[in-house]
Amino acid sequence: MSHRYLPLAPRCPHMLHGGDYNPDQWPPEVWDEDMRLMNLAGCNAMSVGIFAWARLEPAEGQYDFGWLDTIMDKLADNNAVAVLATPSGARPAWMSAAYPEVLRCGPNRVRNLHGARHNHCYTSPVYRQKTAAINRLLAERYAKHPALAVWHISNEYGGACYCPLCEAAFREWLKARYGSLDALNAAWWTSFWAHTYTDWSQVEAPAPHGEGSVHGLNLDWKRFVTDQTLDFYRHEIAPLRELTPDLPITTNFMGTYPGLNYWKFVGDLDVVSWDNYPSWHSGQSDAETAVGVSMVNDIYRAMKGGRPWMLMESTPSMTNWQQVCKLKRPGMHLLASLQAVAHGSDTVQYFQWRKSRGSSEKFHGAVVDHVGHEHTRVFSDVAQVGAALARLDDVVGTTCLPDVALIYDWENEWAMADAQGPRQQKGYHGAVLDHYRPFWQAGIPVDVIDSVQDYSRYRLLIAPMLYMLRPGVAERMQAFVEAGGTLVTTYHSGIVNESDLCFLTGWPGPLRGLLGIWNEEIDALYEGQTQTIAPSNDFCGLSGSYQARDLCALIWAETAQVLATYETDFYAGNPAVTVNHIGAGRAYYVAPRMDQRFQSDFLLQLAADLGIERVLPGQLPDGVTAQLRTDGEREFVFVLNFTTEAQRVEIGEGWTNLLTGEACSTALRLDGYGVAVLASS
Amino acid sequence: MSHRYLPLAPRCPHMLHGGDYNPDQWPPEVWDEDMRLMNLAGCNAMSVGIFAWARLEPAEGQYDFGWLDTIMDKLADNNAVAVLATPSGARPAWMSAAYPEVLRCGPNRVRNLHGARHNHCYTSPVYRQKTAAINRLLAERYAKHPALAVWHISNEYGGACYCPLCEAAFREWLKARYGSLDALNAAWWTSFWAHTYTDWSQVEAPAPHGEGSVHGLNLDWKRFVTDQTLDFYRHEIAPLRELTPDLPITTNFMGTYPGLNYWKFVGDLDVVSWDNYPSWHSGQSDAETAVGVSMVNDIYRAMKGGRPWMLMESTPSMTNWQQVCKLKRPGMHLLASLQAVAHGSDTVQYFQWRKSRGSSEKFHGAVVDHVGHEHTRVFSDVAQVGAALARLDDVVGTTCLPDVALIYDWENEWAMADAQGPRQQKGYHGAVLDHYRPFWQAGIPVDVIDSVQDYSRYRLLIAPMLYMLRPGVAERMQAFVEAGGTLVTTYHSGIVNESDLCFLTGWPGPLRGLLGIWNEEIDALYEGQTQTIAPSNDFCGLSGSYQARDLCALIWAETAQVLATYETDFYAGNPAVTVNHIGAGRAYYVAPRMDQRFQSDFLLQLAADLGIERVLPGQLPDGVTAQLRTDGEREFVFVLNFTTEAQRVEIGEGWTNLLTGEACSTALRLDGYGVAVLASS
Amino acid sequence: MSHRYLPLAPRCPHMLHGGDYNPDQWPPEVWDEDMRLMNLAGCNAMSVGIFAWARLEPAEGQYDFGWLDTIMDKLADNNAVAVLATPSGARPAWMSAAYPEVLRCGPNRVRNLHGARHNHCYTSPVYRQKTAAINRLLAERYAKHPALAVWHISNEYGGACYCPLCEAAFREWLKARYGSLDALNAAWWTSFWAHTYTDWSQVEAPAPHGEGSVHGLNLDWKRFVTDQTLDFYRHEIAPLRELTPDLPITTNFMGTYPGLNYWKFVGDLDVVSWDNYPSWHSGQSDAETAVGVSMVNDIYRAMKGGRPWMLMESTPSMTNWQQVCKLKRPGMHLLASLQAVAHGSDTVQYFQWRKSRGSSEKFHGAVVDHVGHEHTRVFSDVAQVGAALARLDDVVGTTCLPDVALIYDWENEWAMADAQGPRQQKGYHGAVLDHYRPFWQAGIPVDVIDSVQDYSRYRLLIAPMLYMLRPGVAERMQAFVEAGGTLVTTYHSGIVNESDLCFLTGWPGPLRGLLGIWNEEIDALYEGQTQTIAPSNDFCGLSGSYQARDLCALIWAETAQVLATYETDFYAGNPAVTVNHIGAGRAYYVAPRMDQRFQSDFLLQLAADLGIERVLPGQLPDGVTAQLRTDGEREFVFVLNFTTEAQRVEIGEGWTNLLTGEACSTALRLDGYGVAVLASS
Repeated sequence: MSHRYLPLAPRCPHMLHGGDYNPDQWPPEVWDEDMRLMNLAGCNAMSVGIFAWARLEPAEGQYDFGWLDTIMDKLADNNAVAVLATPSGARPAWMSAAYPEVLRCGPNRVRNLHGARHNHCYTSPVYRQKTAAINRLLAERYAKHPALAVWHISNEYGGACYCPLCEAAFREWLKARYGSLDALNAAWWTSFWAHTYTDWSQVEAPAPHGEGSVHGLNLDWKRFVTDQTLDFYRHEIAPLRELTPDLPITTNFMGTYPGLNYWKFVGDLDVVSWDNYPSWHSGQSDAETAVGVSMVNDIYRAMKGGRPWMLMESTPSMTNWQQVCKLKRPGMHLLASLQAVAHGSDTVQYFQWRKSRGSSEKFHGAVVDHVGHEHTRVFSDVAQVGAALARLDDVVGTTCLPDVALIYDWENEWAMADAQGPRQQKGYHGAVLDHYRPFWQAGIPVDVIDSVQDYSRYRLLIAPMLYMLRPGVAERMQAFVEAGGTLVTTYHSGIVNESDLCFLTGWPGPLRGLLGIWNEEIDALYEGQTQTIAPSNDFCGLSGSYQARDLCALIWAETAQVLATYETDFYAGNPAVTVNHIGAGRAYYVAPRMDQRFQSDFLLQLAADLGIERVLPGQLPDGVTAQLRTDGEREFVFVLNFTTEAQRVEIGEGWTNLLTGEACSTALRLDGYGVAVLASS
Repeated sequence: MSHRYLPLAPRCPHMLHGGDYNPDQWPPEVWDEDMRLMNLAGCNAMSVGIFAWARLEPAEGQYDFGWLDTIMDKLADNNAVAVLATPSGARPAWMSAAYPEVLRCGPNRVRNLHGARHNHCYTSPVYRQKTAAINRLLAERYAKHPALAVWHISNEYGGACYCPLCEAAFREWLKARYGSLDALNAAWWTSFWAHTYTDWSQVEAPAPHGEGSVHGLNLDWKRFVTDQTLDFYRHEIAPLRELTPDLPITTNFMGTYPGLNYWKFVGDLDVVSWDNYPSWHSGQSDAETAVGVSMVNDIYRAMKGGRPWMLMESTPSMTNWQQVCKLKRPGMHLLASLQAVAHGSDTVQYFQWRKSRGSSEKFHGAVVDHVGHEHTRVFSDVAQVGAALARLDDVVGTTCLPDVALIYDWENEWAMADAQGPRQQKGYHGAVLDHYRPFWQAGIPVDVIDSVQDYSRYRLLIAPMLYMLRPGVAERMQAFVEAGGTLVTTYHSGIVNESDLCFLTGWPGPLRGLLGIWNEEIDALYEGQTQTIAPSNDFCGLSGSYQARDLCALIWAETAQVLATYETDFYAGNPAVTVNHIGAGRAYYVAPRMDQRFQSDFLLQLAADLGIERVLPGQLPDGVTAQLRTDGEREFVFVLNFTTEAQRVEIGEGWTNLLTGEACSTALRLDGYGVAVLASS
Repeated sequence: MSHRYLPLAPRCPHMLHGGDYNPDQWPPEVWDEDMRLMNLAGCNAMSVGIFAWARLEPAEGQYDFGWLDTIMDKLADNNAVAVLATPSGARPAWMSAAYPEVLRCGPNRVRNLHGARHNHCYTSPVYRQKTAAINRLLAERYAKHPALAVWHISNEYGGACYCPLCEAAFREWLKARYGSLDALNAAWWTSFWAHTYTDWSQVEAPAPHGEGSVHGLNLDWKRFVTDQTLDFYRHEIAPLRELTPDLPITTNFMGTYPGLNYWKFVGDLDVVSWDNYPSWHSGQSDAETAVGVSMVNDIYRAMKGGRPWMLMESTPSMTNWQQVCKLKRPGMHLLASLQAVAHGSDTVQYFQWRKSRGSSEKFHGAVVDHVGHEHTRVFSDVAQVGAALARLDDVVGTTCLPDVALIYDWENEWAMADAQGPRQQKGYHGAVLDHYRPFWQAGIPVDVIDSVQDYSRYRLLIAPMLYMLRPGVAERMQAFVEAGGTLVTTYHSGIVNESDLCFLTGWPGPLRGLLGIWNEEIDALYEGQTQTIAPSNDFCGLSGSYQARDLCALIWAETAQVLATYETDFYAGNPAVTVNHIGAGRAYYVAPRMDQRFQSDFLLQLAADLGIERVLPGQLPDGVTAQLRTDGEREFVFVLNFTTEAQRVEIGEGWTNLLTGEACSTALRLDGYGVAVLASS
């Protein structure tokens, strides 16, 4: 069945290319030159109005849209589209002065002074009124403007406010969640250390000089911060939905930023977008950096079920706030840009178009440098991306629906990070990445989802360290396996419920029956300490000894079959890997944190046994991945070489390289940092 | 002369075994199961009521003792005793809301919010009134209850409050100490940097944004914090003394926690107790960890002159707040538990009985795991300890009166840590430990005392780094040596008086005559830098070269004999170790910080020369110690193997191993982590 | 032309020797003993009254000068001079209590409590009134006193205050600087992140909980702090100038303390002075430590155009606040003291005369130890310095006028440190030191100046990392080169103007024409990463390969000649060093941060080509330097051996060693840490 999403901007049915554009920082003389340079760079989409509130409303109730009218018109005249931002990311100074309540309070309950950005109270009625007013004016003015294509809400929402208004809202949120103080006291286990609340007014947000040890409170506070930010977002978009019902709305996220559970926003976004600033050319290999980026890309593709997303920000060269700001090496800019497209982005956008002349990001990479002309290495790299994207019209709107799902769960991360023991360094993100890497290297697409999504369309579900089982998760995993699915989970799974209360039925709690094991204890290893495990003969063809580290669950097989055992320490001989056959499926439990060789040998053999196909038939060279986009009929395979050496890749017959327009032989040669976009006929 | 202390709980004349028990966190259905499991685990003593205030007084003046009545009755019915706590370790939320003065202020003078624990102002009249009221009610209600055996006051007192009430109390404390501002100004040397106070109201507690450089103030503030905490403790116990005059009272200490000078509490405690959470199986060897634990045990045994003490808290397995929470390896739980008994504890108690289901310590080791049944490795380890303790009735009430005393002085640590120079890292704790280790390894008992205790019953007194000489100390050391005692002291001793004012008579100040040396300067060495010293022919048989590090005093022998000299640097040839013969005794001065080989060669030869006997006649294998308890006639020798290998120990004739009930041959074989309790006939 | 400055204290036309003297901390019995000891130590100059306010004015308006009268008389009687301090470094406690406004507010806007030192608001009218009053009384009382020689204003000014008075003063300062908010908004590029100010009242000082990202604000705040401190200083000296117009005034600086741009004070000082506490005998070689000290000495000599300066504080032995407080090794005290004299100091003074008995600096080295007598190693070292200085009367008032100037610019450091990118660790101080070291080792005098000084009298001007070009700098560099001067500059130069706004004309901005290059980008290297460069045949005789690290500018030669190229990475073959011939001079650009071998080979060959002479003709042994003082006719060469080994130095004919009074042979032998002062006849 053929399916292709509509282009994001119907007037511009191409890959979008551009970035944050702040003409309000520059004199009008520069604006025509900007348009000339955009054409040279192959740019067709500009994000405007971000942080422009002080320019749009220089004094309370006095608006100046003239400059933005001009810019919008110029963009339209240049066949470019506008990604128009609401300006709430930073308030004008007059507003902070007139209404201090719009400023945040810190965890120490001291109100911030005006300054920086993202420093607003999302509960403040005044701030909500002011944002609603200016958002409405923007929507009214530009609803019919030909340049307007996408709404960009605020910028990188984040942080929290601890003002009295927010604390009051938190109490209301808790009342709605728990109904009674008794229920709250039970969920938070407040009898520990005499924390029992006897009046709602006693509940306060976590504080360094107050409560910090009630994990249920910490967890609910994080949930509240997400929900209150989402509520503010909904408040921001209300006038836009009313006045421009057909325009897509997004807000730009920050990878796996832990402050907000982005999954809660998905239903209120038309398209997801994120800002990506990896540390290329750093201490770790570029391939390893690329694995991490790909995993996050696969979160954003999965968020809306495969719908193309937007790479909203990236740098054309250096990222000025890194400890060591490396220049992007030749080739890396095209490679990194197409990596996003490979995983489903229909845009490549930058922060920013023209380097700001002053302030904190003046050295951040931009398309146009301070010198102002196009004769720079970076401009040329950007123009190369523009030219490449122009050849990818056929890819616009395509998607990918993987057989494999990997769980990365924000709330699980929150709970585990806050927990004391079994190690203070839990390494959740790394553990998930360890399960992602083999698929990346093999060229097998993966969706990265949170635990409360639907599993039914996957064949292999991997849930590393799923410490917290939210309601329904265990039941749906059971159903998934019974229906023939394969589940893999690990040590430190099935420990607590959604309130961070330990299961009393033996770990892994409600998964005990499904996995057929009892996890009695968990041993923690010091940095550098290791353990080994030995696979049995019938375990996916594995042989020899594999190394474990960090965390080793001590388990008993109940109904499960033992596939590997520990080899050292006092639990030598105990089960280390098990499988349980339930219904038509199987459930694996890996008790220790394993080395990468195990992850690869185990998971790829499992995928092979399940008949899960690779995007390209052969073995990919180390550091090269292949990623798929398709409309259900035609396939587009992005082959990306993250090594500095040339690589030979077997691709089989029938491919055309869209970047060159030439038909391919069965062996593709990629230069160091080389990329090809193969299209089936 | 035979002497044996009475059992702590006359109704239960056995080793006590149990731990913190919080039935108030669990439904009554669980309570009978708890009793069944206590019997299985050999537990006979439970600490109840800790942090139970919110349950005992759910609203101001409304009390609920019913649940505690039930628990006390069940304990009595099960032949177990209750260690009953006063609940002051944490206040109910209603109290913080109604009386904010009960909350502490931080050093920044900001009042804390409600939360955490140990967050009360110990000066607050309201808090004192509330604690007195509930303590009186507890005493009235349970005075005659058969289960009640020991009072457990609050929990782990600690921290400080900087509220106006506390600052006012501090000023009163200072008036009482100094009488006049002139005396205070002189003692604090306030003429430095124009700090002279001209009105009492100008004196403020140390603050990060205020005074921090007046060392006399810092020191007196720490003394005040101890005294005010002690005053609060006395206030807590007043109704208990009145209503239950025959019951022993304790409060649980935290090793060498620097915030309180525990020695000041001794006169008001009937029995001392402490909470012990070593990092077994960590980066350092278990034997080294054990040395540190033993030294602290020997502080607590010495505190009340050899009276048996209580191990009030320990973990049956992992300690959840350590960076890496290792499981206790098989054997370690019994070994570590009997280590406490070896040094004089008549109890082995845990935090806690049943793992809490939520909040910050939910992963801390406990006898009963979340799974709730007895079929766990940890439960079995605990039951093994229960069985072992049941064989040690004869040891109950015995003591040990060593010939060797080692000074570890809280106020000396305070003063030295605050001082700038000669190195910012002083290493006092490690320096004391360096002097303790040889005796531990040789199986020679040691009392670890502070400097203001009586020395007369010892034969060897060791005072490393006794920077601060409090009043009378020098005089008593002089008397001790004149009477035939042997004193060993070191670099950085005799520098300041009790006000942290330097002696003006040449270091080591009032010890100059006793030691017969003048310490002109002290050199500091960087990490990794070393110096060597060469012993003379007549120095305890030492030969070759020994290594020094960190701190090297430059001294001149006045009346002392030089026993060793420096070998390198500009002070090569200068005295490094001296002895001075005074009256019937000798006073040694060791000028540099020495390596462990020197500590062992020197101190053990000294002990041998003084005829100080080892507990067992032979050389103990590395990592094995032997510790003595006795009633003056019968000897009980605990032989503890902190290595993972089996060890052979020569013990001579006439011993029975109480743990097995079998007579021993002259060579004892201990498994890795093995332990034996030898009893003479 | 012969020129010699007048002695600082005409009544005492010798090198001054002494230190901070606080008789107010000691009973009068000690004062005569102090005088006896001063004579023994060869001390003739004492700094009195520092931090004495509480003693001089024990209650508001009640003064006690009696003790100071006595001390001044005794000094005069002993033929010593007084360096008399104003007491503003610390307020009496009564003042803080009566007038809280005299206390500082921190960046968090919380007012400090009384305590520490240097904790006053320099804007407070009350504090200004109080300092003016006591300063006037001191001047009135001692104007004619024979002992009074130099005014010592306050002590080590530093820090900042964020109180409302200071913020108001800051706004006035900004109004004066910018005239209009429009100009301020433009200079600070406030359009970034909507920071546009629309009312002066919106401008606040930087705050951790407020504005921190506007670099122009941060920079101007630092400028304001300097200017406001200078204004306070001017306020302090007003009564002194009026009453003692002929007495020199100084205030003691702290090396390259970054909080104040000391160059701004120069016009208001009669003599500069600084406090020097190097870490001798530490992890780095003493020679390397000495290079750093010499460079700072050369700042202070250059500040007033070669006028002799004062070493106001140094330690006779250990510095008690260092992590590891090493004793000065034999010889080091004389060597380090004469190092200051070698670079133009006419004093050697200590903190302090007599060790304070208590408080935070009681272990800091002092001439007289707690033991109180003269029979100490340190006293003897000090007396040796006294004897040496007594032989240097001929050196008093001499100077040195180098051909080489090296720029170290405080405001450049501020701007660069605050900038994000290209690395967060910029290494400015080290980069300047790297350019200083070759001259030190070769015995070539160097002036170290800031960028806004006159360059015309130099032949070689070196400006490493001159990121910020303040007004006129580029123009004066151009004129300097056109007139025949040689300029050397490096990577990361010519990036921003005085407002931290990037030049829009291509880096190095206004230096682009002078240097004949365009710097398109700058690459940052991780710690441990390296690059190499290859010199061309005609580059100062350099050959082989040199190593680069940290920062590598990517440049294009426009009119410049390429002298070396990069050898690796994607910019291999690109220019790495260039020279541009302009008028009668040359301008070099070194694109990467180079290793020390390059610095030495390049700069010393350049100096040789320019005919810049070494102080001594031959090659100096490693770790030995030679520094010149002269009256224009007679030369005094200080030869300083910072190694522990004896060294042989070729000095040519005609020298007398002033320290021994003996004529020298052509080869000088210096012991380890040896020093000679050679005088031409």
